[in-house]
Amino acid sequence: MEVFVLNEMKTFSKEKMKKVKLFDTKNFFCDLYCLKPGQSQKIHAHQGADKIYFVLEGIGDFSIGDKKKSLKNGTAVIAPSEVLHGVVNNSDSNLTLLVFMAPNPNRND
Amino acid sequence: MEVFVLNEMKTFSKEKMKKVKLFDTKNFFCDLYCLKPGQSQKIHAHQGADKIYFVLEGIGDFSIGDKKKSLKNGTAVIAPSEVLHGVVNNSDSNLTLLVFMAPNPNRND
Repeated sequence: MEVFVLNEMKTFSKEKMKKVKLFDTKNFFCDLYCLKPGQSQKIHAHQGADKIYFVLEGIGDFSIGDKKKSLKNGTAVIAPSEVLHGVVNNSDSNLTLLVFMAPNPNRND
Repeated sequence: MEVFVLNEMKTFSKEKMKKVKLFDTKNFFCDLYCLKPGQSQKIHAHQGADKIYFVLEGIGDFSIGDKKKSLKNGTAVIAPSEVLHGVVNNSDSNLTLLVFMAPNPNRND
């Protein structure tokens, strides 16, 4: 049984946002994104794949399309295919996100 | 921006486990499963779709294939395609799960 205790998987880097792989199948990936204060995932978009961010810890300033919103732990937001999206940790605390994406852009099997 | 505060979305039913739809695209669905003490999702399997359960609140007794494990809040587990899986709330408290499945078995668009 493939199980992860998310608090044990969190990893932060001084250099940039850290992605920690949890589950990776031909259908989706599920990662932890770990952002120290000041770190970000730059605004980008995907063709054909939808993404969900779930805020596990902290507060993230999200951009989805032309909207911006600060979302705290316990909140989920979707970045649909082709829609520009990104997140910044403008807070003084760590930000941890559970991220689901399907289909898996890293797999062609 | 499509945002959900998960604590505000939780809904329990006396009759059976309650599924609350959050996000639904042609690529995946993301639901809340809300189980009162004694409620369960019976063991079943899906052809071609993988599922992730993330325990938001409480303790669930999960069956994945021939393995069984009690998993508490903060834990994620995968039920791969074709593998039998289910969950029972054998505790005295409510159990809330964030569930992600791809591809979306309810959509053919």
